[in-house]
Amino acid sequence: MRKPLAIVPPPFFENVAVVLVQTLHGGNIGSAARAMKNMGLSRLKLVNPQARLDTDCLKMAGRASDIVSSAQIHPTFEEAVAEENVLVGTTSARDRRLKQRFYTPRDIAPILWEYARRQRVALLFGPENQGLTDEQLSQCQYLVYIPAHPEYPVLNLAQAVMILAYEMFAVQSINLNEHLRLVSHAEREEMFKHMENVLVEIGFLPAGNPARIMRSIRRFLGRADLTERDVQIIRGMMSHMEWYSREGQKLPPEAIRKP
Amino acid sequence: MRKPLAIVPPPFFENVAVVLVQTLHGGNIGSAARAMKNMGLSRLKLVNPQARLDTDCLKMAGRASDIVSSAQIHPTFEEAVAEENVLVGTTSARDRRLKQRFYTPRDIAPILWEYARRQRVALLFGPENQGLTDEQLSQCQYLVYIPAHPEYPVLNLAQAVMILAYEMFAVQSINLNEHLRLVSHAEREEMFKHMENVLVEIGFLPAGNPARIMRSIRRFLGRADLTERDVQIIRGMMSHMEWYSREGQKLPPEAIRKP
Repeated sequence: MRKPLAIVPPPFFENVAVVLVQTLHGGNIGSAARAMKNMGLSRLKLVNPQARLDTDCLKMAGRASDIVSSAQIHPTFEEAVAEENVLVGTTSARDRRLKQRFYTPRDIAPILWEYARRQRVALLFGPENQGLTDEQLSQCQYLVYIPAHPEYPVLNLAQAVMILAYEMFAVQSINLNEHLRLVSHAEREEMFKHMENVLVEIGFLPAGNPARIMRSIRRFLGRADLTERDVQIIRGMMSHMEWYSREGQKLPPEAIRKP
Repeated sequence: MRKPLAIVPPPFFENVAVVLVQTLHGGNIGSAARAMKNMGLSRLKLVNPQARLDTDCLKMAGRASDIVSSAQIHPTFEEAVAEENVLVGTTSARDRRLKQRFYTPRDIAPILWEYARRQRVALLFGPENQGLTDEQLSQCQYLVYIPAHPEYPVLNLAQAVMILAYEMFAVQSINLNEHLRLVSHAEREEMFKHMENVLVEIGFLPAGNPARIMRSIRRFLGRADLTERDVQIIRGMMSHMEWYSREGQKLPPEAIRKP
């Protein structure tokens, strides 16, 4: 079995900071830290946090407590972002500022990847109850709005952090199924022939016209994207059926090739 | 100002259920409900919840408490999913089950959209500490793995719900900037001509060779994707500069056309 490629964040993710401004709840800070670590981010800045980094915070951080304990704490927004190059403001109040250009997390992520290779990028999140101020947003180069249902478009703070972090992580191409090998056409056809013979032999298919039901079987198995392993399993099943129907007993263990 | 298109979930989202199996923490149930409502999902099922739907749960639910209070509670997994058509299991332990096919949330979302038009789709999430069992996963038609950093690939339960819900919502094409109109080439060129004249007049650009610095200005303004409104602002600035430099006083208010 080949080991799947580990999907790791690029080294320049250390250039990406999450900046939480005047966060009210410690649980949200912890939860944001966990989201960051899940997605390979590590640089957390807290601007004048209104919550303590207490038990509640650490409980939500889970195994990301290192991110909480290494967070930089700044008294002011200006101090926190002074050394950053690209400021990205998040807002849930798109309608108020209609004249501006907004990016979805999906659209901004590849842009921020390019910046982050050489520049420090700060993802900014305001306090839970009111978000970033107009003054803070006006200092940002990019504004991000997370598309959401108009009936309740305001996301929990840590959920918003997760979506930005998730989109950043997902910029790299991800193929979870590199280890799977679809069966070849010839092997698939051999399997169908084998199947047809056995199913005729045991009387499930009429010998005179096996094709009609075989066509249905072909259809649903065709939709199943069979791998080599799947075909081995089906053929093993057929061999056992054939043997059992002829001999009235199980295939001897030494004859079994395990899929 | 044109009102932006509201991005609303499709009506068939009512066919999509989130099924939380033996959840341990009420806060996660509330937080999952909020994530669902943010992304236009509403059908919540709880299998033998280990947490009470108490204050902590409702606090995290925010304005999604209706989803918590209308959640169906089932004693067993089998009962909860019996009437669903398509079962989608989520897991954070991809490596254990290498022989199977995994989908990312991004890849599965459009597939589930097609099912959800006519079929009931259940998104299944196991308990916080161990996830769905192999037996439960084996009953699923699709397995979803959220790509994450191998150092800490286990997401908080409600965060995982959010990512699935977010990807479902994001299947529809989203353009946040339909209200923006980029300026035409001719208007942009008029602006540069105006700018050059004024900057020569006030002595910022050398009359003999204004082009060298103008080229830099063109470059950075060219990267700024100027809208009609942006060009109005720049031209207004130039008009005021011109007037002030000639007359030594501000442009009279009646002459000002507000952008």
